[in-house]
Amino acid sequence: MGNTSNDVGSNVTAVTVAELPGLNTLGISLVRIDYASRGINAPHTHPRATEILTVIEGSLLVGFVTSNLENRLITKVLEKGDVFVFPQGLIHFQKNIGYGYALAIAGLSSQNPGVITIANVVFGSDPDIAEDVLAKAFQVDVKVIEQIQSKF
Amino acid sequence: MGNTSNDVGSNVTAVTVAELPGLNTLGISLVRIDYASRGINAPHTHPRATEILTVIEGSLLVGFVTSNLENRLITKVLEKGDVFVFPQGLIHFQKNIGYGYALAIAGLSSQNPGVITIANVVFGSDPDIAEDVLAKAFQVDVKVIEQIQSKF
Amino acid sequence: MGNTSNDVGSNVTAVTVAELPGLNTLGISLVRIDYASRGINAPHTHPRATEILTVIEGSLLVGFVTSNLENRLITKVLEKGDVFVFPQGLIHFQKNIGYGYALAIAGLSSQNPGVITIANVVFGSDPDIAEDVLAKAFQVDVKVIEQIQSKF
Amino acid sequence: MGNTSNDVGSNVTAVTVAELPGLNTLGISLVRIDYASRGINAPHTHPRATEILTVIEGSLLVGFVTSNLENRLITKVLEKGDVFVFPQGLIHFQKNIGYGYALAIAGLSSQNPGVITIANVVFGSDPDIAEDVLAKAFQVDVKVIEQIQSKF
Amino acid sequence: MGNTSNDVGSNVTAVTVAELPGLNTLGISLVRIDYASRGINAPHTHPRATEILTVIEGSLLVGFVTSNLENRLITKVLEKGDVFVFPQGLIHFQKNIGYGYALAIAGLSSQNPGVITIANVVFGSDPDIAEDVLAKAFQVDVKVIEQIQSKF
Amino acid sequence: MGNTSNDVGSNVTAVTVAELPGLNTLGISLVRIDYASRGINAPHTHPRATEILTVIEGSLLVGFVTSNLENRLITKVLEKGDVFVFPQGLIHFQKNIGYGYALAIAGLSSQNPGVITIANVVFGSDPDIAEDVLAKAFQVDVKVIEQIQSKF
Repeated sequence: MGNTSNDVGSNVTAVTVAELPGLNTLGISLVRIDYASRGINAPHTHPRATEILTVIEGSLLVGFVTSNLENRLITKVLEKGDVFVFPQGLIHFQKNIGYGYALAIAGLSSQNPGVITIANVVFGSDPDIAEDVLAKAFQVDVKVIEQIQSKF
Repeated sequence: MGNTSNDVGSNVTAVTVAELPGLNTLGISLVRIDYASRGINAPHTHPRATEILTVIEGSLLVGFVTSNLENRLITKVLEKGDVFVFPQGLIHFQKNIGYGYALAIAGLSSQNPGVITIANVVFGSDPDIAEDVLAKAFQVDVKVIEQIQSKF
Repeated sequence: MGNTSNDVGSNVTAVTVAELPGLNTLGISLVRIDYASRGINAPHTHPRATEILTVIEGSLLVGFVTSNLENRLITKVLEKGDVFVFPQGLIHFQKNIGYGYALAIAGLSSQNPGVITIANVVFGSDPDIAEDVLAKAFQVDVKVIEQIQSKF
Repeated sequence: MGNTSNDVGSNVTAVTVAELPGLNTLGISLVRIDYASRGINAPHTHPRATEILTVIEGSLLVGFVTSNLENRLITKVLEKGDVFVFPQGLIHFQKNIGYGYALAIAGLSSQNPGVITIANVVFGSDPDIAEDVLAKAFQVDVKVIEQIQSKF
Repeated sequence: MGNTSNDVGSNVTAVTVAELPGLNTLGISLVRIDYASRGINAPHTHPRATEILTVIEGSLLVGFVTSNLENRLITKVLEKGDVFVFPQGLIHFQKNIGYGYALAIAGLSSQNPGVITIANVVFGSDPDIAEDVLAKAFQVDVKVIEQIQSKF
Repeated sequence: MGNTSNDVGSNVTAVTVAELPGLNTLGISLVRIDYASRGINAPHTHPRATEILTVIEGSLLVGFVTSNLENRLITKVLEKGDVFVFPQGLIHFQKNIGYGYALAIAGLSSQNPGVITIANVVFGSDPDIAEDVLAKAFQVDVKVIEQIQSKF
C-alpha cells in the first residue's frame, strides 16, 4: 500500500518506462493510486497520455475540465468497479469521498506519460515563475502569489 | 492587429481546423500573438501539440516548466527573429518585456491543438471545482480560493 | 465479479470503445479478469494493443511466446501488486495457481484492441478452416483436427 | 526460387529491416512466398503489420479469421494477378490449390512485421507451454497435447 | 498485362483504397508496373508513402535523388528477384534496360499513397503554372517552358 | 534578413532539428522566407511535412498542384496577415508580386521536413539523371535536357 501520510492524502505508484524498461516503444503504462480518507489526487495533467481509471476499493469523486473556451467541469462519483476516462492533456483530479481507504488502478496510453501537478508546477517551480506574471494570470495581488509559492 | 485591451494585455489569433477546415488530417496549425506593453500570455498548455514560436516585433521573456518531479523553469529572453520551442503539454507563458507593442507567430503540431489556460480552467471552470479540493491542492485557505474564483 | 463457471474458469470484462464510446481516438482501454481456482485465460493475442496487467487478488502464472524464429516462452509468477507486460500481437496466457479466486486489471494501448483466442479462432471459426490445412499445419492426423474442432 | 521441400510445402523469403537495414523508419517490407504443389503457408499472424498479397503464378486458396466474438472465416480463391488483404494481427493462411508451383509477393506495413506461426508458437515454444494450460485451452486430453508438441 | 503503348512505355496498375475500400485504415497498398522494351516509369514521388519494389521479369535501372542540399542520385541495376526501396516523398524512376518486357511489383506504406509525376504536375497542371515562375525556377527562356508545356 | 541576391530572388532560413536539436521527437519546425521584389520560392516539396504559411510583409502569389490524375493548380494571392496551407508532399511555390521586399513565416509538421527543389533535384542531381530518361519524361529533345542540366 502506498504511503498516504502527506499534504494531499494520496500516493501514486507508477509503472512507466522509467521503472520497467521493457515498456519502451509499447505505448502503455499503469499506475496505482492509494487514497487516505478524504484524500485527493490534486489537479494535474499527463502531457503525453490519456488515462482510464477503475476503482478497486472505496468511492471517488472524479473530474476533468475541458479546454478553452468552454472550460466545462465534468464530474462523476465512482463506486467500486466503475471506470472513467481522462482525455490526454486535460486537467483532472480525484477525491476519496468515503470514510475509509480507497484504491484505484489506471492505464495510461504512453510508456512515458509525464505528470504535471498544477499547483507544484505553477507555484513551486525551480526557480519560481516571476510573481508579476502569476499575479496578472490569476488576477490577484502579488502577496497572494507569494503566500501560495511559500507552500511549495 | 489583435485587440490587447484585456486583463492580461495580449491577444491570440488562431488558425486551426476550426477556422480552416482544410487543415483536417494535416497535423499543423498557426497562431499570431499580439502583446501590449508589459502584456503577458498567461501560463497555459496545449494538450495535443508542441509549439514553435518566433518573435516578429519586440522582446519577449518566454518560459516553460518541466514535468514532475523536477518542475524546472526554463526561461529565455527572445529578440526579434529568435525562435523557441514549448514541448507538448508543458505549461508555458510569454511576457512582453519591451516598452512597445510585440508580435509573435507560432506553429503548432496539430490541426486541433487545444488551449488550457491554467487560471481559467482551475479557478474559472463551469461549474467550479469544489473549493476543498483546490484548498488542499494549493495549500491555502478556502477564502483565498474563493477570492481567486471570483475573478474568473 | 465476473462469472467464471465455464470451460476455462475465467471471465474477462472489457471496457473498450464498444462499451464506452467516449474512448474513441483516445488510444486506451481497460479489462478486468476474474479467475476461478486453477482457472486459465487461454492463449490469445490482441492484434492492435500491448497489455499491461497487475494482480489485485491471488497468484498468477503468466507467459507469452516471442515471434519466429525464436518462439521463446517467457513466464513469471505474479503475486498481488505485481505488474507484467504482454507486447502487441504476441500470444499470451494467465493461469490462477492459487487455491482461491484471483483478480487482475489490465490496460491495453488501443480503444479497440481486439481479442483472438487461438483455440477458438483456429478450431472454432465459422465456417471451419479446411481440415487438411490444419492437419498439415499442426502435423497431426485429420481425425485429431476433427476431434478438437468438435469442441468449439 | 525458395526451397519448398519441408513439412508444409512452402517457403517465405522476407526483406525486412533485418535483411535490408535501409528500411529502418520507413514502415514497409516485402516477402516472396513459394508454394510446392498443394503446399500451404500455415496459419500465422504478423503482430505489427497488415499484409497485401498478389499471386504471380498459380492458384491460391487464402483466408483469415476475424477476432472474437465472431471468429468468422473469410476465404477466397485467387488466380494469377489477384490481390487480397490480411488485416494486422489476424490469423491467416494460404494453400496452393493448383497442380504446379505457385508464387506470391506480399507487402507488409512495417519494416519489422514479425511472424507468429500458430502451431510452432503454441506447441513448439522453448520451453513448452504447460500441458494443462493447453489441454484446457484446446479442450482435449493432455496426451493429444503431448502428441502435437512432439512434432515441433 | 498493363497496356504500355504510351509515350513512356510503361503502365502502373494500382490497388489502393480507391480500388479496394477494405484497405481503409490498414496503411498499405500494392502496385504492378509493366514496362515495354526500354520503357520508363518517369520521375515521380508518392507524397504519403515509402515504396519497396521487386522485379518479377526483366532488368531495371532504378534510382532516386536525396533531398537538398545533397541532391545525390542513387541508382542500381536490378535483376529478377532483386528488391529496392524508394523512401517517402523522394523523386524516383525506373527504366527497363532489357530488350524484352519487364514486370515489377511494389508495396507502398499507405492505403492512399498518391502519385506526383513531376513532368505532368509541373508542366501539365490545370491551369498551367505561370511561365515566368517556371522560367526562373528552371533557369531557361520562357519559350523552352512553353515548348515543354505544349506536350502535357 | 535573409540574403536574396540569387537566381530566384528568395532566401529560406530554416529552424529544424538540424539547427535546434531540442526539436527531436517534437514533430514541428519553422522557416522564415525572405523575397526580393518579384522573387520566387521555386516549385518544391517537403517529403515529410505539411506547411502552413503566413505573410508578414508584402503580397505573395502562392500555389500548389494536386496529385495525379487531376494535377489541378490551386493558387491564391495573399496579403499581409493571410494564411495558406501546402499539404504534405505536394509541389508548391510562392512569388512576391509586390514591388518591395516580402516576408513570410511558415510552420512545418515535422522536425525534419526535408526540401526537394524540383529543378535542382531533377536537373541538378549528382550525378545527373540519364538524359534519355529525362527526355522521355519531359517529352523534349535531349538537347533541351542538356541545356537545363547545364544551369544546375
